[in-house]
Amino acid sequence: MLTALELIGIAVFAASGALAAVRARLDVFGVIVLALTTALGGGLTRDVLLGVHPPTALVTWPYLAVAGGTGLVVFWYHPTVAKLRRSVLLLDAIGLGLFVTAGTTTALLLGTPEYTACLIGVVTGIGGGVLRDVLLREIPLVLRQEIYAVAALGGALVVVLGHVAGLPAGPVSILASALIAGVRLLALWRRWNAPTAPKLDG
Amino acid sequence: MLTALELIGIAVFAASGALAAVRARLDVFGVIVLALTTALGGGLTRDVLLGVHPPTALVTWPYLAVAGGTGLVVFWYHPTVAKLRRSVLLLDAIGLGLFVTAGTTTALLLGTPEYTACLIGVVTGIGGGVLRDVLLREIPLVLRQEIYAVAALGGALVVVLGHVAGLPAGPVSILASALIAGVRLLALWRRWNAPTAPKLDG
Amino acid sequence: MLTALELIGIAVFAASGALAAVRARLDVFGVIVLALTTALGGGLTRDVLLGVHPPTALVTWPYLAVAGGTGLVVFWYHPTVAKLRRSVLLLDAIGLGLFVTAGTTTALLLGTPEYTACLIGVVTGIGGGVLRDVLLREIPLVLRQEIYAVAALGGALVVVLGHVAGLPAGPVSILASALIAGVRLLALWRRWNAPTAPKLDG
Repeated sequence: MLTALELIGIAVFAASGALAAVRARLDVFGVIVLALTTALGGGLTRDVLLGVHPPTALVTWPYLAVAGGTGLVVFWYHPTVAKLRRSVLLLDAIGLGLFVTAGTTTALLLGTPEYTACLIGVVTGIGGGVLRDVLLREIPLVLRQEIYAVAALGGALVVVLGHVAGLPAGPVSILASALIAGVRLLALWRRWNAPTAPKLDG
Repeated sequence: MLTALELIGIAVFAASGALAAVRARLDVFGVIVLALTTALGGGLTRDVLLGVHPPTALVTWPYLAVAGGTGLVVFWYHPTVAKLRRSVLLLDAIGLGLFVTAGTTTALLLGTPEYTACLIGVVTGIGGGVLRDVLLREIPLVLRQEIYAVAALGGALVVVLGHVAGLPAGPVSILASALIAGVRLLALWRRWNAPTAPKLDG
Repeated sequence: MLTALELIGIAVFAASGALAAVRARLDVFGVIVLALTTALGGGLTRDVLLGVHPPTALVTWPYLAVAGGTGLVVFWYHPTVAKLRRSVLLLDAIGLGLFVTAGTTTALLLGTPEYTACLIGVVTGIGGGVLRDVLLREIPLVLRQEIYAVAALGGALVVVLGHVAGLPAGPVSILASALIAGVRLLALWRRWNAPTAPKLDG
């Protein structure tokens, strides 16, 4: 079941990358490259930080097929997909939840300290989107708006606390993923934003 | 011979990075840093993904000397080099062929699955140019135009098929490199471009 | 003492990242993320290149606490910090010195060749600032202005020469750090810049 959910997360992130690439007028290959980068970038970064060589994403062909195939589908059908913007935001929030949870769990299983696992989980969740935005010359969305990073960190904390308390991993993962997705969607729905600094004089 | 060809590839990519840096009005140190990054970035990325520590490019001083020296030469003589723009594009295509082939071969020798080796070969070939463009705040050229990524992937496939079929590595490498360079140059010459998506309504 | 100096370097780089984020109108979480990235990015890059898994910065909680806490302090008190711009530049130069020296020393201790250690030291010193600027869509400052990279490389050379000559590491480190900071500050003070190429005709 976790694998199925992971593949959904990959498809969702791939769709967000592909849509952003279509908006930037990239050609079909650019769209596929950006779909792959957005969907797999977070996991690649996690594996490079943890020393997993070669990274899981590069040796698991279903991940590649789902990410690339999603990019192609978005390229051909993007007007429809664009109209589904709300669905994409919903799925994107679910993808964030799944990726943060999976990244934190992977780091814990490899024996990293708890706070390190939290950080690596957050990096896994946000890494793909950061790469997408940097390649398209945007300031990464996660830096600019909404309670994105905090939702991710909160969910990673739930995974770690469950691990420390010896709770079963399955239900804790589902709870953490739902928490991240829920907070993220609430922030979008209610237009929650964190404070920005008052205007700079200098 | 392969080493000689690799050094040519490094020089060519270093020249493309240095020229881009000169156009962005960087000072002499910026030009050299960008020459090094463009020439060695693809190989660095490959080695980080494969777990080769420290990366080959950082422990092979001729690579560093050729890349840095080329950057310096371009800085001093760039009006001439700029007039040689066609030659640079020619050499750049050859460099792409050599880097993709070398990257794919390195990955196969380390025992990665065939499709993983293809991806790592492509990353080796395009990584340096992506870093160059990101540092100069451009959307990477490989995402925007031309049959660049497809030529790279096709050449990597040839290397892998030759490996699976047990053909001798030398001739296959030369064939793959020539194929990549040839397709890339044809695309430039005929102004082939991949389709972009029709205009987005939303 | 070295640890205390390292923590000072981390705080200083975190402050520079946080101030840049405040100027880009990021929210409080964006400011903290950028403080962490700027302060820890150079060390992360060094550890990824050297194969230190997981990277030191992610398993040393005081580093994280100092970097994140500095980001928070800058966010709340930034008008004051902005008025302290000279102090920040002073501390930034000291941070560069400490990071280059620490990075070069780490690479030498892991047995890399001397010139590799120099390069890794320079990457450690400049990596955080490059990430900061790329995330904020700036051409990295180190590429555009001032004798930044050269000061870093010169200091790394001093560390390596001291190592080869068998001199005691402590005084050599202090000398190298002071040299880097001094050259950097002199360049700022005297507005030294490296030559840029004459205007391009093409």
